[in-house]
Amino acid sequence: MEKEKAIVLLSGGLDSTTAMAIAKSKGFEIYCISFRYGQRHSIELEASKKVAQVLGAEEHIVVDIDLGKIGGSALTDEIDVPKDRNEKEMQGNIPVTYVPARNTIFLSYALAWAETFSAFDIFIGVNAVDYSGYPDCRPEFIEAYERMTNLATKASVENGNPFRIQTPLIHCTKAQIIKKGYELGVDYSITHSCYDPSHDGKACGACDSCKLRKKGFMESGIPDPTVYAQDDFF
Amino acid sequence: MEKEKAIVLLSGGLDSTTAMAIAKSKGFEIYCISFRYGQRHSIELEASKKVAQVLGAEEHIVVDIDLGKIGGSALTDEIDVPKDRNEKEMQGNIPVTYVPARNTIFLSYALAWAETFSAFDIFIGVNAVDYSGYPDCRPEFIEAYERMTNLATKASVENGNPFRIQTPLIHCTKAQIIKKGYELGVDYSITHSCYDPSHDGKACGACDSCKLRKKGFMESGIPDPTVYAQDDFF
Repeated sequence: MEKEKAIVLLSGGLDSTTAMAIAKSKGFEIYCISFRYGQRHSIELEASKKVAQVLGAEEHIVVDIDLGKIGGSALTDEIDVPKDRNEKEMQGNIPVTYVPARNTIFLSYALAWAETFSAFDIFIGVNAVDYSGYPDCRPEFIEAYERMTNLATKASVENGNPFRIQTPLIHCTKAQIIKKGYELGVDYSITHSCYDPSHDGKACGACDSCKLRKKGFMESGIPDPTVYAQDDFF
Repeated sequence: MEKEKAIVLLSGGLDSTTAMAIAKSKGFEIYCISFRYGQRHSIELEASKKVAQVLGAEEHIVVDIDLGKIGGSALTDEIDVPKDRNEKEMQGNIPVTYVPARNTIFLSYALAWAETFSAFDIFIGVNAVDYSGYPDCRPEFIEAYERMTNLATKASVENGNPFRIQTPLIHCTKAQIIKKGYELGVDYSITHSCYDPSHDGKACGACDSCKLRKKGFMESGIPDPTVYAQDDFF
């Protein structure tokens, strides 16, 4: 029997890599989509290519998206990435690293691609627990997005095929995600999470993303293979 | 009092131009967004620039989007644009000129941009009457999209500002759209609708879009300023 196809939104980070491993473990043939969106570093994309290859993607496309023209975030503009924030500070307001409508845009491309080869499952590694305040990582957003997709496309409207936005990590803590991936054999040393890596690709250890990653490994009891430039915990 | 800002999705065609004129007549300050998405011709974008200028946009951005990598339509691939179809043929199945998830992608960029400068009204000239079979031009899609946007963004979730996807033309016939624009002083000679223009920019007169445009002018009783390469009616 032919395998069903699934699209995985792959950043090369810990969460999307685990989401890909889960999709694979469910028997899907995997098509990865990554985005070049004016990130200040390309290390993330290099990690995504490595992950797609190592975990055995059928295909991996990198779509150029023009968020630079739109602006509004530390990840694309020249705003400083916040460092050394404690958990309370991270859980407060939506941070400056928020990219306007980012998941909305990413999912829209995934949807367009999915429709061209009749994939109906789109995996995204969003997470509402350690989500650092991003509105487009919450279950209510994902549900509304899925509902919209099924009114948006020829595949769903004319042919009655519903799309499913699969979020296997949405209610997991970072530690639970790491444990899940570890059970599935994920080598996290090839993944990249840092918002502000050094020129040689080393994770800073101090941005929200590094701190959540460190804390996740610590709580999971699984050794963290990441080399950080700064290695204190909060 | 400062004017409220609105974004208009501007293709340079008849519908989006009329939508812009309506937004302007409601007192909004207008920010236009157009897309370069591997169209086989740039005449559409030239028309959008002209329209933005003539109708007095505050700003006009053209966002490059990478639909080429995704494929799946006559407007971006090498599939032939259908010609000389009658009304019944046009109202049947979703045509090959359908671009997967196109409005979903376009609206997502508009939403991202809107959020960066606190615009909460996004005008899109979609039309469910003469819509030539596109699922993402129907009111149920727009409603689901709007609902999703209000769960997607910092502006709506943290600050309680709802976005409105404004579709002033959704229930209008092409003739009604033309009459409305004419009343608002729109010069339709600067707009462009054709899916398959000749090298000198002349509309073909035979694709679905040209046929709907011709018929609209005919039914409105307003002279059609368009020069067509082929000028028979259906």
